Amino acid sequence: MVDIRQTKDMLGRGELCTVGEAQKVLANYLSNIPTITEEIPLSEAFDRVLAEPIFSSEDLPAHPRSTMDGFAVRASDTFGASESMPCYLNISGEVLMGQAPEGEVTKGSCHKIPTGGLCPEGADSVVMFEHTVPVDETMLEVVKGVGTGTNLVQTGEDIAKDSEALPAGWRLRPQDIGLLAAIGTSTVTVTKKIRVGILSTGDEIIAYTEKPELGQIRNINTLALSGVVREAGGVFVDYGIVTDQKDIFLPTLKKAVAENDIVLFSGGSSVGVRDLGEQVIEELGPPGILVHGVKLKPGKPVIIGLSGNTPIFGLPGHPVSAMVCFDFFIKPAIRQLSGLPAFDELSSSVVQARLSRNINSAAGRLDVIRVKLVKIDSIWNAQPIMGKSGSISTLSRASGYFLIDEDSQGVSENSIVKVILFK
Amino acid sequence: MVDIRQTKDMLGRGELCTVGEAQKVLANYLSNIPTITEEIPLSEAFDRVLAEPIFSSEDLPAHPRSTMDGFAVRASDTFGASESMPCYLNISGEVLMGQAPEGEVTKGSCHKIPTGGLCPEGADSVVMFEHTVPVDETMLEVVKGVGTGTNLVQTGEDIAKDSEALPAGWRLRPQDIGLLAAIGTSTVTVTKKIRVGILSTGDEIIAYTEKPELGQIRNINTLALSGVVREAGGVFVDYGIVTDQKDIFLPTLKKAVAENDIVLFSGGSSVGVRDLGEQVIEELGPPGILVHGVKLKPGKPVIIGLSGNTPIFGLPGHPVSAMVCFDFFIKPAIRQLSGLPAFDELSSSVVQARLSRNINSAAGRLDVIRVKLVKIDSIWNAQPIMGKSGSISTLSRASGYFLIDEDSQGVSENSIVKVILFK
Repeated sequence: MVDIRQTKDMLGRGELCTVGEAQKVLANYLSNIPTITEEIPLSEAFDRVLAEPIFSSEDLPAHPRSTMDGFAVRASDTFGASESMPCYLNISGEVLMGQAPEGEVTKGSCHKIPTGGLCPEGADSVVMFEHTVPVDETMLEVVKGVGTGTNLVQTGEDIAKDSEALPAGWRLRPQDIGLLAAIGTSTVTVTKKIRVGILSTGDEIIAYTEKPELGQIRNINTLALSGVVREAGGVFVDYGIVTDQKDIFLPTLKKAVAENDIVLFSGGSSVGVRDLGEQVIEELGPPGILVHGVKLKPGKPVIIGLSGNTPIFGLPGHPVSAMVCFDFFIKPAIRQLSGLPAFDELSSSVVQARLSRNINSAAGRLDVIRVKLVKIDSIWNAQPIMGKSGSISTLSRASGYFLIDEDSQGVSENSIVKVILFK
Repeated sequence: MVDIRQTKDMLGRGELCTVGEAQKVLANYLSNIPTITEEIPLSEAFDRVLAEPIFSSEDLPAHPRSTMDGFAVRASDTFGASESMPCYLNISGEVLMGQAPEGEVTKGSCHKIPTGGLCPEGADSVVMFEHTVPVDETMLEVVKGVGTGTNLVQTGEDIAKDSEALPAGWRLRPQDIGLLAAIGTSTVTVTKKIRVGILSTGDEIIAYTEKPELGQIRNINTLALSGVVREAGGVFVDYGIVTDQKDIFLPTLKKAVAENDIVLFSGGSSVGVRDLGEQVIEELGPPGILVHGVKLKPGKPVIIGLSGNTPIFGLPGHPVSAMVCFDFFIKPAIRQLSGLPAFDELSSSVVQARLSRNINSAAGRLDVIRVKLVKIDSIWNAQPIMGKSGSISTLSRASGYFLIDEDSQGVSENSIVKVILFK
């Protein structure tokens, strides 16, 4: 049974939306924001996202090359050769690395060739070293025949001239950078890194390097959020700790909105701060508030708004709630503004694990259950970590989390759950 | 049937060892190398590895705090309260964020308290806002009773004073940095980042920014390897392209060994270069060569050696082979020298997928089959990418790879394979 209180806003402003609905509303707005691009050296482009497709201006390889150490031959000279009936060829030359091959492989002759060596004129295949027996300096016994093209990579076989090497929207992994190096790309046009400004609000918050007095607590969220921003491919900009007085909070948020692609403030989980956050986002609009509160635990009080083209997120002050909201809303936003799909199943590590105990869940909300993975009898067991969402240690002890969706009232012991690992 | 030729060294020097044997030999040597540590600011410690355990010098929280917006009460005053039979309390104070609570909650009274507020003297629990109805400024109706301790986080509940917050050998994720901030840690002692020097050898290799003449090819490996070194947590140092003449190669390698924790040279897959590599590693020993060649495809000609405490890896020139060898030998070495376990199942993303075609494999060697993952009818399909190991485009088109182990001669279509994803 749905508890109506549970699905109401903290201030009683009616039904909250689901995580899926909130993500969709946000993604729709973000899809209208143009990506900004820049040209950077290839050597600095790891993990960046291509803003445009890259076509190869040359064939790779430019000429047929050997894929083996061996001898360049005419395949027809070796047809039928075997251990019991070898064929014999004159060694009439040698291909040297980095140099154009000299001479021609004529009928009945061969050239010695290293791996990567250019196939000399006249030859159409390579017999690998292991299938030959040298008779002397000038004569070779071949004990296994080859077909035309054997042990050669042909012109353009790796990448053909004018073909698309990589599409727009592609995140550049080391091998992609290698491919671009191979075709002589020295700069690439990529989307700009998304700048994420972070404010921490609350009169009780002090820098983590300070000693708290009674009632004060250290700022955890700015540092923890800066780490997940970086993991998501963004750049973190620190706007410090601001009091929740409007005359301080509003100008700081305004400055952060002007200077960044995304702005987060954390600490708005108590009613007063949350109220202020909503009010200020509305003032910085349009469009203003898109979402206030979602059916999510932990993370229910999240506020999502937009000031012009800059999304603003009001995160709960509890660090666990803040980090969960990051994963569900801000990571997808960073991806989308970077030119990637907002969601990609393969961008998170998932492990199937056996749940170690029953977990109840209120129907009508998405529950995020933090678990520690422990291998028992070669099977991963997911052990729920039950602490309160204010406890950062519960997140530190967790390997990842699994989800109990809105339709479910719980998951029973020994069920197999999909655990999404922290990076 | 094992093909004896296949399991022989290219120069006929007998049986190659398996990947597992090579990894074990290497790990045994590396386990004797002491880790080097350094103290750095907490804000720069993301992804670094703790060199020593961290104990908390304080209780977190230092005092009981509310986890809800609501009213601090004596639980006994609310016992049995319900919608139909509410209880009434005097509102005798309010807890403000960042300040010590004033006054005491006496029998029959309550203080208003925000999420995170300190529990005032006399109170032992918090009734959440949603379970109360304000009668007026001074009187509260409570419609749901609470037990002692409800909606409070107790002193030391998150982390207790003198308990271990994090163990040695722990890689610091954003939430771990958050935890350390919470207990007031401003610097941490971590293992030093592993420096990996990279040489590219071969007379045919030119910088990727240059235009190749006939027979020359651009340097792909240095850039691609620098990317995987960074992903594995190491620091890349470039020693450029060196000719495979010993009088140039030996001094450059020697310098790289003196200046780094690990040295890689790539390009030694042709017999001549490989010979030179082995000879030079022996000269830089002891212990010298540990492994020459493994039962692995691609990647068979890898050379693994050690000069004092510096492992040296001779990688095949083919970029795909070089990258495969990196994953099997160098990534574990970087992890081990950083103070992490060499192998950790959870450090790679694995996806179960259905193989789209039969793949044959020679028994007696570990086969690394690159695949592209494509979702068909909500099931991941692994489509093998069959190009030659010299083709960097095959690696760029791949989502990851699966393994066919030494005992198997192949995997049939529609089998479920475990695909290890590229980062």
